[in-house]
Amino acid sequence: MSFETLQSPLRFLHSTLRDFRPPDWLQHYQCWWEKEGQGTSDHTDRAGTPPLRMFDLAGRRVDEILYSPDYWRMLKHGYQSGLIWRVSEENAVFPAALGIYLTSFYDPGLACPYTVSLSTYVPLLKHGDAELQERFLPRLLQKDETVWQGATWMTEIKGGSDLGANVETVARPSGTEWRLTGDKYFSSNAGAELAVVAARSEGAAQNVRGLALFLVPRYRRDGQLNYFIRRLKDKIATRSVPTGEIELRDSEAWLLGRAEDGIYLILEVLNVSRVANSMGSVGLAQRAMADAASFAQGRIVFGKPLIEQPLMRRQFEDRLHHLRAAAALAWKAVELLNEVWQERPPYSDRYHLFRLVAHLAKYWTAEVAVQTAKWAMEVHGGLGTLHEYRAERWLREAMILAIWEGPAHRQILDGLEVMERKHAHRLLFQLLAISVPASALQQIEARVEQHLALPREEKEAGAEAVFSELAVFTANSLLRAVE
Amino acid sequence: MSFETLQSPLRFLHSTLRDFRPPDWLQHYQCWWEKEGQGTSDHTDRAGTPPLRMFDLAGRRVDEILYSPDYWRMLKHGYQSGLIWRVSEENAVFPAALGIYLTSFYDPGLACPYTVSLSTYVPLLKHGDAELQERFLPRLLQKDETVWQGATWMTEIKGGSDLGANVETVARPSGTEWRLTGDKYFSSNAGAELAVVAARSEGAAQNVRGLALFLVPRYRRDGQLNYFIRRLKDKIATRSVPTGEIELRDSEAWLLGRAEDGIYLILEVLNVSRVANSMGSVGLAQRAMADAASFAQGRIVFGKPLIEQPLMRRQFEDRLHHLRAAAALAWKAVELLNEVWQERPPYSDRYHLFRLVAHLAKYWTAEVAVQTAKWAMEVHGGLGTLHEYRAERWLREAMILAIWEGPAHRQILDGLEVMERKHAHRLLFQLLAISVPASALQQIEARVEQHLALPREEKEAGAEAVFSELAVFTANSLLRAVE
Amino acid sequence: MSFETLQSPLRFLHSTLRDFRPPDWLQHYQCWWEKEGQGTSDHTDRAGTPPLRMFDLAGRRVDEILYSPDYWRMLKHGYQSGLIWRVSEENAVFPAALGIYLTSFYDPGLACPYTVSLSTYVPLLKHGDAELQERFLPRLLQKDETVWQGATWMTEIKGGSDLGANVETVARPSGTEWRLTGDKYFSSNAGAELAVVAARSEGAAQNVRGLALFLVPRYRRDGQLNYFIRRLKDKIATRSVPTGEIELRDSEAWLLGRAEDGIYLILEVLNVSRVANSMGSVGLAQRAMADAASFAQGRIVFGKPLIEQPLMRRQFEDRLHHLRAAAALAWKAVELLNEVWQERPPYSDRYHLFRLVAHLAKYWTAEVAVQTAKWAMEVHGGLGTLHEYRAERWLREAMILAIWEGPAHRQILDGLEVMERKHAHRLLFQLLAISVPASALQQIEARVEQHLALPREEKEAGAEAVFSELAVFTANSLLRAVE
Amino acid sequence: MSFETLQSPLRFLHSTLRDFRPPDWLQHYQCWWEKEGQGTSDHTDRAGTPPLRMFDLAGRRVDEILYSPDYWRMLKHGYQSGLIWRVSEENAVFPAALGIYLTSFYDPGLACPYTVSLSTYVPLLKHGDAELQERFLPRLLQKDETVWQGATWMTEIKGGSDLGANVETVARPSGTEWRLTGDKYFSSNAGAELAVVAARSEGAAQNVRGLALFLVPRYRRDGQLNYFIRRLKDKIATRSVPTGEIELRDSEAWLLGRAEDGIYLILEVLNVSRVANSMGSVGLAQRAMADAASFAQGRIVFGKPLIEQPLMRRQFEDRLHHLRAAAALAWKAVELLNEVWQERPPYSDRYHLFRLVAHLAKYWTAEVAVQTAKWAMEVHGGLGTLHEYRAERWLREAMILAIWEGPAHRQILDGLEVMERKHAHRLLFQLLAISVPASALQQIEARVEQHLALPREEKEAGAEAVFSELAVFTANSLLRAVE
Repeated sequence: MSFETLQSPLRFLHSTLRDFRPPDWLQHYQCWWEKEGQGTSDHTDRAGTPPLRMFDLAGRRVDEILYSPDYWRMLKHGYQSGLIWRVSEENAVFPAALGIYLTSFYDPGLACPYTVSLSTYVPLLKHGDAELQERFLPRLLQKDETVWQGATWMTEIKGGSDLGANVETVARPSGTEWRLTGDKYFSSNAGAELAVVAARSEGAAQNVRGLALFLVPRYRRDGQLNYFIRRLKDKIATRSVPTGEIELRDSEAWLLGRAEDGIYLILEVLNVSRVANSMGSVGLAQRAMADAASFAQGRIVFGKPLIEQPLMRRQFEDRLHHLRAAAALAWKAVELLNEVWQERPPYSDRYHLFRLVAHLAKYWTAEVAVQTAKWAMEVHGGLGTLHEYRAERWLREAMILAIWEGPAHRQILDGLEVMERKHAHRLLFQLLAISVPASALQQIEARVEQHLALPREEKEAGAEAVFSELAVFTANSLLRAVE
Repeated sequence: MSFETLQSPLRFLHSTLRDFRPPDWLQHYQCWWEKEGQGTSDHTDRAGTPPLRMFDLAGRRVDEILYSPDYWRMLKHGYQSGLIWRVSEENAVFPAALGIYLTSFYDPGLACPYTVSLSTYVPLLKHGDAELQERFLPRLLQKDETVWQGATWMTEIKGGSDLGANVETVARPSGTEWRLTGDKYFSSNAGAELAVVAARSEGAAQNVRGLALFLVPRYRRDGQLNYFIRRLKDKIATRSVPTGEIELRDSEAWLLGRAEDGIYLILEVLNVSRVANSMGSVGLAQRAMADAASFAQGRIVFGKPLIEQPLMRRQFEDRLHHLRAAAALAWKAVELLNEVWQERPPYSDRYHLFRLVAHLAKYWTAEVAVQTAKWAMEVHGGLGTLHEYRAERWLREAMILAIWEGPAHRQILDGLEVMERKHAHRLLFQLLAISVPASALQQIEARVEQHLALPREEKEAGAEAVFSELAVFTANSLLRAVE
Repeated sequence: MSFETLQSPLRFLHSTLRDFRPPDWLQHYQCWWEKEGQGTSDHTDRAGTPPLRMFDLAGRRVDEILYSPDYWRMLKHGYQSGLIWRVSEENAVFPAALGIYLTSFYDPGLACPYTVSLSTYVPLLKHGDAELQERFLPRLLQKDETVWQGATWMTEIKGGSDLGANVETVARPSGTEWRLTGDKYFSSNAGAELAVVAARSEGAAQNVRGLALFLVPRYRRDGQLNYFIRRLKDKIATRSVPTGEIELRDSEAWLLGRAEDGIYLILEVLNVSRVANSMGSVGLAQRAMADAASFAQGRIVFGKPLIEQPLMRRQFEDRLHHLRAAAALAWKAVELLNEVWQERPPYSDRYHLFRLVAHLAKYWTAEVAVQTAKWAMEVHGGLGTLHEYRAERWLREAMILAIWEGPAHRQILDGLEVMERKHAHRLLFQLLAISVPASALQQIEARVEQHLALPREEKEAGAEAVFSELAVFTANSLLRAVE
Repeated sequence: MSFETLQSPLRFLHSTLRDFRPPDWLQHYQCWWEKEGQGTSDHTDRAGTPPLRMFDLAGRRVDEILYSPDYWRMLKHGYQSGLIWRVSEENAVFPAALGIYLTSFYDPGLACPYTVSLSTYVPLLKHGDAELQERFLPRLLQKDETVWQGATWMTEIKGGSDLGANVETVARPSGTEWRLTGDKYFSSNAGAELAVVAARSEGAAQNVRGLALFLVPRYRRDGQLNYFIRRLKDKIATRSVPTGEIELRDSEAWLLGRAEDGIYLILEVLNVSRVANSMGSVGLAQRAMADAASFAQGRIVFGKPLIEQPLMRRQFEDRLHHLRAAAALAWKAVELLNEVWQERPPYSDRYHLFRLVAHLAKYWTAEVAVQTAKWAMEVHGGLGTLHEYRAERWLREAMILAIWEGPAHRQILDGLEVMERKHAHRLLFQLLAISVPASALQQIEARVEQHLALPREEKEAGAEAVFSELAVFTANSLLRAVE
């Protein structure tokens, strides 16, 4: 593959996944980014966290987020192109996954609104009753600029890993509905018209079993705000998505599914987001490499382009391989998600396999994104450290992709668990058997089983090495199968 | 070593380098940082690139950099503590190296002014004639707030690696003096009272042999500005040092040493800076770890502190080892520099050994700093992505330390050269023989020699792997010797 | 008076008020500003609204305002110099009034913390019971950096003029104490250790009679925050005082005086602030003129300094006169305040005279400050529109002085009321009789009485003209008496 | 006129100028502002001075101004609507004058690019030779987004009033062309494709007679930059026009007209800008009032809307009258400009009358804008001091309108001169005779003639009072004639 291919998300995907043919709408979407979207993405990042206008001049609480008009156009363009409504029409997650990958090449932060809108649509579709679906589903699937956005708010101030202990938002029944009160601390897409929110009904257990998932619209039926944005968080990147602290104060809410299944619904939401994050990480890593390649082609050092210096060339080649393998891994996560996304508990083996691949993909693609972006900055030399150019942005963006939806530590431990409890690694090795020599497979299998047989403490302590080996092995194997 | 030790630069150094005893002035300097300096460092980073007031109200060009008054106090405090003047008094580079390490724990950017002041002092001391020394040396060694700062300006717009081709600044003789005209593109410590500047005298060769090193004060003898700051660069970090684009316009200048030795003088300057950068990287990496440890001690997950989770604990232990080994490597570079810093060409073998160790140290400590800072952000989870807290700052700072004074690519190729041309690796292996089993030494020696025997193209292409192996081996070996 | 005198607050005051001799501490305070404070003031303005860190890394709400360390030193310096504690020691308001005038020459925003600390001290001194005084008075009068700051929080989201209708903060009794719940919208000196707060006890009348004044410390007895800062307001100026939106949530509070006197206590507080605002406006207007004079002396136009052009010179002379008259007016307000500041209702005639003079002074000095600052910008020409220089700052600052403590509209109507209901204008004319020819006095007296005899609607509608005439007349007359 | 009319620029103009009927294109332009432009204007002001990217990644100087994409759309919309090309098609200045007025209601800064494009078009049309016109005129008159912008750069670092002494830019002949070298200090619309620039040809007199006017395109014939933007100035307002410091370095240039007429050409340019500034000031003052009216209608104080309080209502009525009179005055300046704009020296009496009216209009409309905006902030109370709302913006904008094209001081002295030397006041009184009673006219005539008869020093010193009286008298008289 020539480095030139890096410059186009769709050409790159096509030349990595043998069978992939980009649909027309996606071609148009890429053209739009090249022609119009890119400038807005640059400006939105430069502008930093937008101001939040909490009150209008008449003293009414409005919680208006003051992006540029451009921003809103850019944001709506993705919805109108079909990142969400096509998921419904095609009954498949591919439109969202591909759209998120493509978006992330140009603006990794903007992929978040689409991701959380998808992660709102899915539980509503699977777990909402008829009335809820009738009221809210069409809003999320509008094809014009009146489309509603979704959001998924779980994390509270004490941290996002241990939700069972840390969710303090309380749900109180109110007729057939509920009222929620509590504070969410990292709330992506603050200002969304519809959010799914983790809360604990009064008296429920103080652990993960006590959690339930609720649907919370932005406005009450009387037109008042149904939740408040305490402030927007001043993040280092993904400035195209407003992340806020949310105050729920007797907020109107509806329960999704059965209260006792809450934790499963929450994890379903997270798993969708992890897959989206993986595709986004690939798009971002590709972008960082694409920019590095352009630069290294134009920069003359010791008489020839930087990219033609042997060491630099080798680095490009190695990294391109890793990028393609990461793409194959992320794509497998998408394919598996597409098989299982409508499953409800109890889940099939295929679902457990999906979970393991999703953890591997989230972990590894983010790592590739960070290391690629870091290296791309170094390729730019001093210019890579200046806000004036794009290189430094990709590392900032990558760090957020590495952290949200759970950092490496979380993916490793959760991946360990699904191997221990569901033997998902065995399902994985079956999957890889197609493209991998048996001997290689036996070797990694032995390595994993040995590790799983260790005492708990030791098993956890040493999990990073084995998990990263497994991720690299899986990615390389999958690449061999599809390229 | 307990993680608690990470919180104190001097305690950490003491417990890593068996023989190190922090002098009193350094203890006081650390106390000052804890009590006063830290807040100013935080504020300076938050405030971003300072404004540059180019003209006063009367229309006179003044190029005044508008930091807070606090900043200037913080900056001068290091000079007054003796980071530079003690080098002269003790005739040793240790005060600067230790001061820079300590400073970097609290403000990695502020280490730069001290580094470039040292790198101005050294060539003036070694290569300046009596008149120049009399005029300028005392200024750089003042013990009060009237002290002058130095600066080292080489890089121009076409890039900093290939100085031979890219320096377009011209030096024209003017009596016994010179006049310089040209633009410097990455000029750290813009506004310094005295700079050493690379330029090419009219008619000199268009390669590295044509370069010479000049001394340029901020003000002309008539009190006018002797150089102009076109603008300050909007860097992602090291905001405690103003980096600017400098316009030299018939600027008064003095030649240092002989014109034909220019490139050696320039490389001497760079090598001093690389060692300083290595100590700074260790200080910064330690800081990132120290903050991660504090956080992980306070954060409760699944019923106990995050730092006590087995996987997290293992990560802390592994990284602490790497940090200590990096400290041993950087310290060896300091010790070697201290042996050779007053050498002039032709250089001794010891100097070549120093060069190799300096390249290894610059390369590896920066890598450790970046990876540690990246991981420390992940330990903080979502909080690690917020400007509100310190975690994200350390990664920004680390990226600059990794890039300036030459990124990895540069260190690897220059390291390769000193091994090829001066067999510096053999000197290194002799050095390590004290603390390393012969068998291990033979193995790495074979690995390196084999690599050096490859055809040029292949040798360069594959240099990264062997160089990083060598760096890790050296660092670990040195740690074993000192701890 | 030469324009040179404008450059020194104390020399200006001395040469305007014949009998004024600046005490030593004030001389030192001015020296400190010249030498140290000025730079911090510039930087604080440039830095804009400081960030608010709402939570620490452990998730505890802390509401920490992130100014530079310099700022805190600058702020504390005024307290330590004695702006507040000298009021207690000398049992007179002069130290505060003079200190606020002097501060405002260098940093009009910083005068606010001193003003509201005074306005917290005074009601506590007058209306607090022995226990409250014992607990809190010494804190406000500390002479070192442990001194507490005060604050005065009345205004809520619906507006500050009609407090009777708009205060919705509720006070509920809790033993001998109270608990306050409500939101304050313009809260100067957010973060102060002690605030006086207007609230309505449950069931009290929905008008001004229902208001009472409470004392609210920053921390509860258990060490938790007793009020929250929802956000800091992004003001155009006075950036040296953090103005926030305050959330009182069951906040521990103590009643000051009797609940039924609440509105009087509130007005007493406001009146102190108005006098302080008047002195601040004079200091600010003087500063704008001083800077304009410096500039116009240095700027050469058509062959001579701008200030020597006849039209420009005339403008300087006219404005200097107005400035001195404004100073005389503000000073009279101070003297009257000093006579009556310890009065309690029912008030003496002297108090009513004070009120009228305070309204005239607040109104007129602010108008002088705005118009002087506007004109000073014009004197600077294009340079006057740049953030780089100070000229534009003074107009921003002046606009805030004109608005807070009630804009012109409010002063005029309240001034009208005290003339109608208390005949305060007659007391004023008696006061002026000393320095004004009887004929002139009769003329203005007739003008005022005629106006007061108009039907209500017409009287209010036309009040601006007569009030501004009265202000100018009073200011000029007072100047004649003191100069 | 109801206050409601204030909300629409075209309705306001229609109801003030009896005979004015807004053309269709202007109606559409206003609709566009309401629907799309307003948000972009708000965002552009909030975003502050845009960054300037001086070099691209390849090290080429590019001087790219980094506004949002929205901005460029907003900017181009005015050109495409016909603010400039209609002047050519209709052979009249009305389209520009009306468009600038309307633009200023929504974004006073954006009116500047149109103004200076007009002021570039006019001298090129009047004084350019056939070749120049052929090359450049069509570019300025393009109807699509390829349209070129103009700019008018006179002022240098020593100030803009005394051009004769302060212009140091030198023009050297180069065949039939010229090369310019020098620095311009306040250069509006930096980055414009074509600028008219004041310079002094080598050896020319060191006074106004030595000045000539040149045409300078952005790019040289070889595609390189023909001038450089040293930096953008950080202004308090008019952020929709990038104002920069311009470096001319042997810049390709063409002489406009005859060198010895230079000063006349420069003054013609200034006079066009003054008229545009007058219309802009009216639009801005109207906007400030419109916003104040909306606010005062919505704010309830003491039981009824603020705007219905008698004093407030009276202020609105008085100010509305002043606004309408200012509009009549500005409009008369437009009508006179339209009569004389194609005159060349020697000028007719009508031209001298135009000059006087232009000075009166520039002076008085800016004063009305500033005072209206200041008062509108006070109407908003505390909300008027917050960046969050629009009120404070209008005062910032107004201050710039008051200062550029010469502050009051300049207009008064230049107005004085045209009365003294050309007796323009007598022409003015003839003009006003239609709508003013003879007695009133005699009174003001006597006042003016008396003043003109004073000794020079005294005449200048006292000029402000008589000039402002004349301005108010003229404005009121003109209003009577047209309403």
